[in-house]
Amino acid sequence: MASEKKLVKSITSRDDNFAQWYTDVVREAELCDYSSVKGCLNYLPNGYAIWELIQADLDARFKATGVENVYLPMLIPEELLEKEADHVEGFAPEVAWVTHGGMERLQERFCIRPTSETLFCDLWSKTVQSYRDLPKVWNQWNSVLRWEKTTRPFLRSREFLWQEGHTIHATYEEAEERTIQMLNVYEDCYRETLAIPFVSGRKAENEKFAGAQDTYTIEALMHDGKALQSATSHFFGSGFADAFNIKYVDKDNQLKSVYETSWGWSTRSIGALIMVHGDDSGLVLPPHVAPVECRVIPIAQHKEGVLDRADALLKELKDAGYRVKIDDSDKSPGWKFSEQEMLGIPTRIEIGPKDIENNQVVVVRRDTREKIVVALDEIVVKLREILETIQQDMYKRAEQFLQEHIDTATTLPELIEKFKENRGFIKACWCGDEECEGEVKYSTGGASTRCLIEDEEWVSDKCIYCGKPAKYMAYWGKSY
Amino acid sequence: MASEKKLVKSITSRDDNFAQWYTDVVREAELCDYSSVKGCLNYLPNGYAIWELIQADLDARFKATGVENVYLPMLIPEELLEKEADHVEGFAPEVAWVTHGGMERLQERFCIRPTSETLFCDLWSKTVQSYRDLPKVWNQWNSVLRWEKTTRPFLRSREFLWQEGHTIHATYEEAEERTIQMLNVYEDCYRETLAIPFVSGRKAENEKFAGAQDTYTIEALMHDGKALQSATSHFFGSGFADAFNIKYVDKDNQLKSVYETSWGWSTRSIGALIMVHGDDSGLVLPPHVAPVECRVIPIAQHKEGVLDRADALLKELKDAGYRVKIDDSDKSPGWKFSEQEMLGIPTRIEIGPKDIENNQVVVVRRDTREKIVVALDEIVVKLREILETIQQDMYKRAEQFLQEHIDTATTLPELIEKFKENRGFIKACWCGDEECEGEVKYSTGGASTRCLIEDEEWVSDKCIYCGKPAKYMAYWGKSY
Repeated sequence: MASEKKLVKSITSRDDNFAQWYTDVVREAELCDYSSVKGCLNYLPNGYAIWELIQADLDARFKATGVENVYLPMLIPEELLEKEADHVEGFAPEVAWVTHGGMERLQERFCIRPTSETLFCDLWSKTVQSYRDLPKVWNQWNSVLRWEKTTRPFLRSREFLWQEGHTIHATYEEAEERTIQMLNVYEDCYRETLAIPFVSGRKAENEKFAGAQDTYTIEALMHDGKALQSATSHFFGSGFADAFNIKYVDKDNQLKSVYETSWGWSTRSIGALIMVHGDDSGLVLPPHVAPVECRVIPIAQHKEGVLDRADALLKELKDAGYRVKIDDSDKSPGWKFSEQEMLGIPTRIEIGPKDIENNQVVVVRRDTREKIVVALDEIVVKLREILETIQQDMYKRAEQFLQEHIDTATTLPELIEKFKENRGFIKACWCGDEECEGEVKYSTGGASTRCLIEDEEWVSDKCIYCGKPAKYMAYWGKSY
Repeated sequence: MASEKKLVKSITSRDDNFAQWYTDVVREAELCDYSSVKGCLNYLPNGYAIWELIQADLDARFKATGVENVYLPMLIPEELLEKEADHVEGFAPEVAWVTHGGMERLQERFCIRPTSETLFCDLWSKTVQSYRDLPKVWNQWNSVLRWEKTTRPFLRSREFLWQEGHTIHATYEEAEERTIQMLNVYEDCYRETLAIPFVSGRKAENEKFAGAQDTYTIEALMHDGKALQSATSHFFGSGFADAFNIKYVDKDNQLKSVYETSWGWSTRSIGALIMVHGDDSGLVLPPHVAPVECRVIPIAQHKEGVLDRADALLKELKDAGYRVKIDDSDKSPGWKFSEQEMLGIPTRIEIGPKDIENNQVVVVRRDTREKIVVALDEIVVKLREILETIQQDMYKRAEQFLQEHIDTATTLPELIEKFKENRGFIKACWCGDEECEGEVKYSTGGASTRCLIEDEEWVSDKCIYCGKPAKYMAYWGKSY
């Protein structure tokens, strides 16, 4: 994986320069790098393996709710993209256009999909006829392309990997329910699998997806106090269905519109993992999404019996279902430790001559660096417990950090002050006017509404900027 | 899945019109259909679910040999595509070109990848330095695009799903070995998982992949006697490496070229499944790639206790790990049987009042229609045995068909005659001259060399066409 040419050097300190620290971790852990195609990434084995674990977990959660996977084309005819007015307005400025096929100029342009609502709607408009054809609850794992100007590894790139779910339903209520259900699936996966806490809720009007009636979002808090929009679920009402003329004959023999949803989760989630859990030694992966849960590191491996015992241990752990590797290279133990830490591998097992003599090993936790002596004949059971403890502890620490960075404000000076001292989310009320939000953004150096808060008592009845009656309470934050 | 609107109608008979039968099965089993994007497919849930099972099986086989998954961009700068002369000559006529990004005309054109050798080489030319960085054994699951003129579902479409593996090695021998190793992985997967037999071997010069030194192929025989190129593995020598200047410093401090391979398996394999195993009632899926292994069909389900017992059975089977569904719709049993057969579900379990009284069920095999009475308290164990028997029997039948359609010829009239009477593969010798092959193709109505035969005694020492000394013995066949 790592070659000798790469010195284990100290990366930039996270608290000194968060942006540089992030870039350093991505590079040194060999997660991804920029390709020769401007703004596009090469997802390297260490990064892609994390994505595979996230995929497997999410996909199982989807299927448990009845989702079926499909694959629709990567190209969208220009005419289709234009059918829903808000949608084309949102996406046309950032799509790539195919104009030639083989040696010929095409009669019609195609864009590379920035998202696939239009293709799903086109297919359904031709195939859905009766209430018996509903609902359709489909998803695809694919890549999409948006011609972004500025890019950052995992957070924003021209092409990125994601899943996009698309559903149609006979009733408004059923579609709304599915929108929330998928938001909940995303919440469970962030909480249980990525050990990432968040705030979540409905987006304000100006932050909605192009063409959506409602957008629900998960907003996670990165270690620098900025919010990352981490997954979204959209309710379209019958807007797309009407634009694409998707009608069905109901039981009462009436022709009716369908109601639609879509929902997406991308490789941005890998960026969230880095920025929520990482530290000055590199990546820290929650065990559930760690491609390698444990690295066995023999100590004084030249001494007789050490490598044999380490190999036997490796085999025992593999047979028990652990994702485990050994580092029996000729590098020094110190180097090996640094590398395992940089890669975020949740545990390492140190095993040397003395350990073997005492019939024990030393397990070192990546998250706390705690050393745990475990009897060799108990390690197969104990390691799973340690990994589960790490998973839980990582969530608790992140949750504590989040709670410490949620505050309230009722006046603009207070809001400005709190964004200076206590980075994170600030609850404040708002009249709903975009101009007021713009002014807040300007005076706080970038804070906007991340999502609306609908189940809590308001901290004020007035807009934080203009003082007129508030329509919403929202989480405000600076975002990626 | 299926709606009442779709009548279970007889599809075209396989032996009357094979091409129409194929199209009918694809449509009626709802595997895929043409999208609004000319020549591109919508992979529908029933078809995509087969692909997911193939993916899972192949991916596990890959990983067991040390393959790591990655993802590289879908766009290739024109300049990169042009670096290897044979490669660009082969692919330039059939790529789609992106010329505009957002509102701007681009300074350089990008093609949508038809295959990704150039991107992998570009990345490695920048990152590989020492023998310690080798080998790289990478793979990606993605889609590629080739601007084909004529298309057929699964067999040939502009965009298709596949995996493309790319590897580089320090030595010629190691790369050659990997080429064969991956051919063997494909062979195992076709044989064990898809229950499809084949002939395999090296391609003749004119049938090689653009830029390859050697191409190895798996050629499966469809029920109409035509060959389907079903997966390929390529050895590049150092051709690409030299064009892209991928050099490494060896242990002896010398700067050396790397040696490269690539290998691919596509959704064409779903076409092979249909055309090898299908019959006049529709699809017949080998259990290992059947998204649903068994459909439970209650008989006289309005009678008291039937649905309850069927549901309980469903649960037992699910809990035991079967991929199983129930059809408790209000359609007639006959309709349900036809539908289960059309979808190729390997078994159905019929359970009615009498069965329950006798504490039994009737398992019906899709492949033979054999009815097997099984005691209810043994079904959880017996069903697995029945499914495994089906898997083995399907392979044996296909293998017998293949062997019955392999013959030899030593003269052109004999070859012509045998292609008339005994469709399939004919072993014949050849001088290696492309003109001779062209004449054979013309006079047989389309037969060409599918692969060379290197471990058998030759049937003649003369070229089947010109009579000059033979250089090769090959399998000749008409191909898709």
